[in-house]
Amino acid sequence: MFNRDGIKLLGIKYPIIQAPMAGGITTSQLVAAVSNAGGLGMIGAGYMKPEEIKKRIREVENLTSKPFGINLFVPEENQIIDDELSAANEVLQHYRRELNIESPQFTQKKEDHYEKQLSTILEEGVPICSFTFGIPSVKTIKELKARNIIVIGTATTVQEAVEIENKGLDAVVAQGSEAGGHRGTFMSDPKDSMIGLMSLVPQIQDHVSIPIIAAGGIMDDRGVMASFCLGAQAVQMGTAFLTCIESGAHPLHKEAIFNSKENDTVLTRAFSGKYARGISNRFTREMEDHQHQLLDYPLQNTLTKDIRRAAAEQNNPEFMSLWSGQSPRLSKKQTVQELIENIMDKCNLSN
Amino acid sequence: MFNRDGIKLLGIKYPIIQAPMAGGITTSQLVAAVSNAGGLGMIGAGYMKPEEIKKRIREVENLTSKPFGINLFVPEENQIIDDELSAANEVLQHYRRELNIESPQFTQKKEDHYEKQLSTILEEGVPICSFTFGIPSVKTIKELKARNIIVIGTATTVQEAVEIENKGLDAVVAQGSEAGGHRGTFMSDPKDSMIGLMSLVPQIQDHVSIPIIAAGGIMDDRGVMASFCLGAQAVQMGTAFLTCIESGAHPLHKEAIFNSKENDTVLTRAFSGKYARGISNRFTREMEDHQHQLLDYPLQNTLTKDIRRAAAEQNNPEFMSLWSGQSPRLSKKQTVQELIENIMDKCNLSN
Repeated sequence: MFNRDGIKLLGIKYPIIQAPMAGGITTSQLVAAVSNAGGLGMIGAGYMKPEEIKKRIREVENLTSKPFGINLFVPEENQIIDDELSAANEVLQHYRRELNIESPQFTQKKEDHYEKQLSTILEEGVPICSFTFGIPSVKTIKELKARNIIVIGTATTVQEAVEIENKGLDAVVAQGSEAGGHRGTFMSDPKDSMIGLMSLVPQIQDHVSIPIIAAGGIMDDRGVMASFCLGAQAVQMGTAFLTCIESGAHPLHKEAIFNSKENDTVLTRAFSGKYARGISNRFTREMEDHQHQLLDYPLQNTLTKDIRRAAAEQNNPEFMSLWSGQSPRLSKKQTVQELIENIMDKCNLSN
Repeated sequence: MFNRDGIKLLGIKYPIIQAPMAGGITTSQLVAAVSNAGGLGMIGAGYMKPEEIKKRIREVENLTSKPFGINLFVPEENQIIDDELSAANEVLQHYRRELNIESPQFTQKKEDHYEKQLSTILEEGVPICSFTFGIPSVKTIKELKARNIIVIGTATTVQEAVEIENKGLDAVVAQGSEAGGHRGTFMSDPKDSMIGLMSLVPQIQDHVSIPIIAAGGIMDDRGVMASFCLGAQAVQMGTAFLTCIESGAHPLHKEAIFNSKENDTVLTRAFSGKYARGISNRFTREMEDHQHQLLDYPLQNTLTKDIRRAAAEQNNPEFMSLWSGQSPRLSKKQTVQELIENIMDKCNLSN
């Protein structure tokens, strides 16, 4: 039943990919530990500057000789409208007062750092590059493939998976509604695209022939084996790696996951302007009443950056983005090697 | 890996339960066909009068010698407030005009028909009785068990599953967010209890020892095998049986499922006052703007009954409740025996 094409394509021993979580979680130590344990470590580079990307790729290369990958966000164009900015900013002011930080100067950066991120990746070379929030251009796909880089897309619906295959990408992450962090939806309303993995994977399998990587709520051998039964050839796990010793997640973020139940997470636009799943806290609850004052991604993300940073520095989890999938009860404090070996020991992949 | 305790408990050959869909879908022919094919047919008796229940049990007994079951809704007390009734009714008037039907006399029935439903089941005897929207009283559980009736509860969270086990029920249906029809949630906000099966089943398995029956989006051997990997001992399938030849679902309901995609369903309170998953149509879309004028379950259900009935009679799917799970692309026009045999042929349950 288990098809090894996906493992062969990615050049890895075990069909386990560490989700490319952005925002400091995927330290070089975490990425390299996953690859050294036989899985695929991924640098979450969506928010990284080109020089940071270069540094990280070289660090990981020094820590492992195994394949690893990197993830970028396909950019979205959203113009600032001054009135909306004022309104969105106004809502956030009392959090800044509570955290005792200044209101920042807001400057809209031109989104050309994506092109520079890509150039850096092409120059440095990585075995695998995945994309979220859209499909890269035909030119980009060609350039990556010319350098033998495996290109992976992220889909939350059948339509998106088909488009990813049609554009020539090599594999597709099927992101179920269980998944923590940002929704990858790019062809429909994200709120209408919350499909559980039990439904998503088989329906995608019937419509594409590239390998499917299941993502969302997978934490142990049960989820891994179930994903293969549904038609996936590998899994991508985020929350399970986030709480590992090697992860760079804030200690209070890890703690919040350990203490959460399956129904403690919410889908919120409050932090970034884009729907994402995280543990409910004061910020997600209070911002529910201000849905109409949120800016679109990535503007809201820029706007809340100082709040999230100050909250982390002041150890205040009520204003941090506590991304988590729907299986926090299955999270453990363990090393990457323990996580991967425990899974592979229990999985019977012979059939 | 596959644990046969659940099958043994239910006295069935195959670990496949037909979901007790209410509203005319679970004809005696459907229920008996499922049991005759080795699964467990279930009468969806939530809305049935006691005399109807008696008739149905006897019909099914005439059509099969195998075990079958019945499902009841644990009642909820909701008082009518005249002003709210007027407002809720006002919103529906233009649908009645469009369907050319009179505004009905609304009389609140006292909810004692649940007690009579129970008495009928105790008198007639059935092998299995499941409950949705709550847990029956200690007295009821005792009475059912005294007659050797297996009692099953429905959970959407770990907390609900634990409570079902603590109250002495014999098995628990784990209803994932993928499931079509009404949410069984009874201990928390249904909107916060939309947990995908990939997350729900393993987290329930870690907290209860009674057999778990996975429900939601399961349509073929892939979903069945995946459910067993996650820790379930049987599956309950609704949409897959709804489109079978033997089902009593409206032909346009079946047609709507055949023509739907995985992201065409919505969670709506518009039909019954209780959240349920169905295919988006004019009624669900237009009623989105009238969330505050909906009555609580079961009042809204009573209020929309004439509209749903007239829409069905007039073959107008835009005002019918087109319940469906998130896997409509996997639906097939087939007999119950074909559905069950196809699954069992492909499932390798030896390990």
